[in-house]
Amino acid sequence: MRAYRYTGPHRAELTEIPVPEPGLGDVLVRVGASGACHSDLGILAAPPGAFPVPLTLGHEVAGYVESLGSGVSGWDIGEPVVVHALFGCGRCRACVLGLENRCRVVGFDGLGLTRDGGMADYVVVPETHLVRTGDLDLTQAAPLADAGLTAYHAIELCRDALRPGTHCVVIGVGGLGHMAVQILAATTGVSVIAVDVEDAALELAARLGAAHTVRSGPDAVEHIREIVGPFPDGADVVLDFVGVTPTLDTARAVVSRGGRLALVGLGQGELTFRPTPGNPVTEMPVETSAVVPFWGNHQELAEVVALARAGHVTAETQVFPLADVAEAYAKLERGEVRGRAVMVP
Amino acid sequence: MRAYRYTGPHRAELTEIPVPEPGLGDVLVRVGASGACHSDLGILAAPPGAFPVPLTLGHEVAGYVESLGSGVSGWDIGEPVVVHALFGCGRCRACVLGLENRCRVVGFDGLGLTRDGGMADYVVVPETHLVRTGDLDLTQAAPLADAGLTAYHAIELCRDALRPGTHCVVIGVGGLGHMAVQILAATTGVSVIAVDVEDAALELAARLGAAHTVRSGPDAVEHIREIVGPFPDGADVVLDFVGVTPTLDTARAVVSRGGRLALVGLGQGELTFRPTPGNPVTEMPVETSAVVPFWGNHQELAEVVALARAGHVTAETQVFPLADVAEAYAKLERGEVRGRAVMVP
Amino acid sequence: MRAYRYTGPHRAELTEIPVPEPGLGDVLVRVGASGACHSDLGILAAPPGAFPVPLTLGHEVAGYVESLGSGVSGWDIGEPVVVHALFGCGRCRACVLGLENRCRVVGFDGLGLTRDGGMADYVVVPETHLVRTGDLDLTQAAPLADAGLTAYHAIELCRDALRPGTHCVVIGVGGLGHMAVQILAATTGVSVIAVDVEDAALELAARLGAAHTVRSGPDAVEHIREIVGPFPDGADVVLDFVGVTPTLDTARAVVSRGGRLALVGLGQGELTFRPTPGNPVTEMPVETSAVVPFWGNHQELAEVVALARAGHVTAETQVFPLADVAEAYAKLERGEVRGRAVMVP
Amino acid sequence: MRAYRYTGPHRAELTEIPVPEPGLGDVLVRVGASGACHSDLGILAAPPGAFPVPLTLGHEVAGYVESLGSGVSGWDIGEPVVVHALFGCGRCRACVLGLENRCRVVGFDGLGLTRDGGMADYVVVPETHLVRTGDLDLTQAAPLADAGLTAYHAIELCRDALRPGTHCVVIGVGGLGHMAVQILAATTGVSVIAVDVEDAALELAARLGAAHTVRSGPDAVEHIREIVGPFPDGADVVLDFVGVTPTLDTARAVVSRGGRLALVGLGQGELTFRPTPGNPVTEMPVETSAVVPFWGNHQELAEVVALARAGHVTAETQVFPLADVAEAYAKLERGEVRGRAVMVP
Repeated sequence: MRAYRYTGPHRAELTEIPVPEPGLGDVLVRVGASGACHSDLGILAAPPGAFPVPLTLGHEVAGYVESLGSGVSGWDIGEPVVVHALFGCGRCRACVLGLENRCRVVGFDGLGLTRDGGMADYVVVPETHLVRTGDLDLTQAAPLADAGLTAYHAIELCRDALRPGTHCVVIGVGGLGHMAVQILAATTGVSVIAVDVEDAALELAARLGAAHTVRSGPDAVEHIREIVGPFPDGADVVLDFVGVTPTLDTARAVVSRGGRLALVGLGQGELTFRPTPGNPVTEMPVETSAVVPFWGNHQELAEVVALARAGHVTAETQVFPLADVAEAYAKLERGEVRGRAVMVP
Repeated sequence: MRAYRYTGPHRAELTEIPVPEPGLGDVLVRVGASGACHSDLGILAAPPGAFPVPLTLGHEVAGYVESLGSGVSGWDIGEPVVVHALFGCGRCRACVLGLENRCRVVGFDGLGLTRDGGMADYVVVPETHLVRTGDLDLTQAAPLADAGLTAYHAIELCRDALRPGTHCVVIGVGGLGHMAVQILAATTGVSVIAVDVEDAALELAARLGAAHTVRSGPDAVEHIREIVGPFPDGADVVLDFVGVTPTLDTARAVVSRGGRLALVGLGQGELTFRPTPGNPVTEMPVETSAVVPFWGNHQELAEVVALARAGHVTAETQVFPLADVAEAYAKLERGEVRGRAVMVP
Repeated sequence: MRAYRYTGPHRAELTEIPVPEPGLGDVLVRVGASGACHSDLGILAAPPGAFPVPLTLGHEVAGYVESLGSGVSGWDIGEPVVVHALFGCGRCRACVLGLENRCRVVGFDGLGLTRDGGMADYVVVPETHLVRTGDLDLTQAAPLADAGLTAYHAIELCRDALRPGTHCVVIGVGGLGHMAVQILAATTGVSVIAVDVEDAALELAARLGAAHTVRSGPDAVEHIREIVGPFPDGADVVLDFVGVTPTLDTARAVVSRGGRLALVGLGQGELTFRPTPGNPVTEMPVETSAVVPFWGNHQELAEVVALARAGHVTAETQVFPLADVAEAYAKLERGEVRGRAVMVP
Repeated sequence: MRAYRYTGPHRAELTEIPVPEPGLGDVLVRVGASGACHSDLGILAAPPGAFPVPLTLGHEVAGYVESLGSGVSGWDIGEPVVVHALFGCGRCRACVLGLENRCRVVGFDGLGLTRDGGMADYVVVPETHLVRTGDLDLTQAAPLADAGLTAYHAIELCRDALRPGTHCVVIGVGGLGHMAVQILAATTGVSVIAVDVEDAALELAARLGAAHTVRSGPDAVEHIREIVGPFPDGADVVLDFVGVTPTLDTARAVVSRGGRLALVGLGQGELTFRPTPGNPVTEMPVETSAVVPFWGNHQELAEVVALARAGHVTAETQVFPLADVAEAYAKLERGEVRGRAVMVP
């Protein structure tokens, strides 16, 4: 079968390897669609030794149950599924409650990250990592596994603050952000303020349910403040899907006292916290909490799949044949992909 | 009556002023005990204009109902009470739910901070800011209004993570920290790890229920890690009652993935948040949230009073006559007060 | 001014009385719309002494700020508002947290119930009981005060169980139920199963966002079970807006293990709880909780108003001039009102 | 090895059977202590076919890891453990989050209930059902598996209402109730009111931390009301570990508006819910919720074990050699066992 494999820093290629065998508790999945994520570019750019070689990329995978390993039952052959690609230890306090993304033992483990992923014709997945997708188009299902799930989980972490009549600022209406706008529209009565550098992204946000759109830039804080009011009032929730220092500064400058910051974007920016109650300008407001959400858990993936199946969430995608995977990643790196790049074998 | 009044930067004096009249909705309280807080020293050190002058200090006040303003009923004359000294607007989304410390309109308003406080023979307080204290010694009741309440509220913000079998690190066993140890012992089954620079403080912590004590210093992180295990495990909750950069660094270095940091201490240190999942050493663990708690609300004060009345919380105090208030603050500034300095008129 | 007043069992009349004066902390509201509630019929049918006489009916009131009592500020004359008509003691543990509907002191106190209500040209209301409605049509705003708020609050009590991919059964698509369907559609990703005896109600439910509709009757449980699956699975939440024994039996028969029953309807039916884990047929499933929600609080009213202002919730109404109020109640009693009967002075 | 096996209605015997083999994912546990539960008597009294035959009884099991089945690692031979005896499907929405006691697929499945239990020399247990007990005495560890866990879980369901200054009524200070009193004392600041028919039980409750004790009987409601105040105030939480109609009536008569009833006891009593807000005497108060808790989950067992290891929870036990198991059950049936009967092989 074909597999797009990382073989060392800045090197990956589509090669032929044997179809893997599903082991005990595993399912062999025939890949139907596989999303390319910006974090895959991070793997390619990582220093030697940071990731195993060779490694089949792809942690956004949807496909069909092809065959069952020993000890597995309850799945129909051909049944469509999406893969929860994140692994925890399964035993710790977090994993026992289904919170693999908070595993207290395993630092980082996932398909396409530390194990062969789904940018291939087939992939082996433990049955406990599968979620049924019913009649959902698989090119829609695949991006739910990371872009959809990560956005959904970040919203979950703030859900108790997302109430009708309050404001949620979404910074960055890209792969994750455009999911977030839709999830917010479908599951909260909150007023969404979308922030992006591009007009097209803001138009998309408005179409997907954002009540307000604000162009990123030096005036963004002022524009958002006109909507949310003066400090100590502000946005109850800010989801930053960019994560560079300017967006983090914007986030802190518009969040309300007692609000929430979810720092999702991997832009490597810095946000400083200083415990000095009362200083409204340069510091974090008191009672406001900040968190760096990480991916999401199995049950959350099932929930975002349910939203997509009910028509509440649709991923913007650009579909490529698997044969063109290298070109797709090149376009992704050059910023030429609109929405999520999804490979179809 | 006597009142200890701030009259400008670095100036305060015990003077004679008329007993104030309780207005509509107010109660005149005869002060029984009034705690001196480090933040009072901050008022004295603040630049001109930061606080009104003259201003009677004292936001930790307990006393007796002396007389009722118009429209007030339901209080017995002589009834002992403690004062919730923080004011919100009373109308915003936060205040309507009793969360004055998250008020979305008023930045900072309180007795002894923006209004005349209780370092005096009498103080006027809106009746809605009183909590009954029953037979609790008033020198015990007064420190509950800030030291007790702030510690209790910080714990409240983390309560869902404070479970039997997990660890809570308390950094700084001073006025607030020694309350926190007791509140944790009485209301959670968590294992407390107390951290301080002084042996006497650590001995106190152990006596009050801490399971482990760790001396602050270069080895503190290593010692705590021996107890809580290696990253991504760690302490589920860290309460930093100091807030200088070294304690904030310690806090971040020992908190677990998915844990909580409550940055209570006003030590002016800095904590940096960087959204880069997977880097365990220099950054905030993923899924971990940080917050700067601010004082507490009326109902929380009622709850910490209930704990004290049931014998679960006892403040370490050093009692001074009100006549010696200037000396008491001088000792506080020189670090010569053991426990909370409480003035008794 | 005109006021529709209850004067004793089965007696009410539209009479002329003086315009009331707003007292301390009060606002005089010029009524713009006033909803007639089934519970008003309950007042008329109550035994002598159950309610004070004379009593102006009307606890669903929207109008315009006409004048301010002493001590009141921050309201523009003419500003449109809706009234939170429920009163608590204001001091107890519940009221301090804004949960007047859980007041631990006052059994039952409200405008149009124990105090003169808004079925009149003017009504006096404490300013703390007003919520701004902006440009919302007042005939839409009035029904939010009870029908909207009660539905919203019942949903709030179950909100953590209302997740994408789960089912919520709404029994009774009348005044409250049709609000509930809309609130669920706007603020959850849950799949709504609407149950009613009338086709028109089911068609309305489908139009408002219900995914499934089921006719009440002997086969209802079976039809719902086809959708939600066999016990111990089932509907995660059941909201019963009828409350007669057959609907309560239906509710219990379709709720999942670990689910929630909210018994809102005042149909006087009975539901039996028996602690015998494991018996799936005649008893409450284990881990399932049941509650009788009661109206809602100020902040919840603000939130349902926000939903209505954003276009997510629209009340079905039949508007009458205040002069025809007696006829409107007569129609309501005969079941001839479609949607909420709203009087306009 | 010896095993005490149910062989049909009212029949059980200690027989010799082969030591079972641990299968894939299993651990063979050498039993150190095995608790006898009243529900075992329910198995003996059940109609034919209700339980499989033969069936080794015992769902409160602690012991030592004896050998590992295939695919199992990470356990030391001889390591002491307690068994989480409840099984869910492992796949449903509840099980994925570690809530096996809310499983949406499996009605009832557990060691000693549907699978061979631990009233024997050895028992086979899936490794995922083991919790380490460290240096805890195994006769103390065994009762935690049901008596401790069920009490802990019931408290968990009400934990957000168990606040300092509020009252929790514990009805029935037997096997579960005396655990509940200790768990409440260790993990909440609530004031416990213990209710029982026996003086010895009330004395035990007082010793374990109950603030008040009340003898069951016609005056119990009045005595409790003297402590908790008049309706609509009352006890914030009532845990009924008896569950006969008189105790359920007491529970409903003393719970506050907005309170919680947890109906744990299997006394087969009935509690009626009627949605008629405002009737304080014969009905459930509004906003009060009732639930029938069922056992508990793996993580909760780990937490109650942590409490026991920290010395916060000690079970009252009466230890018998396994050879005397039949006599122990006979005494249990005659009400002659004080505390939990624990068999030691």
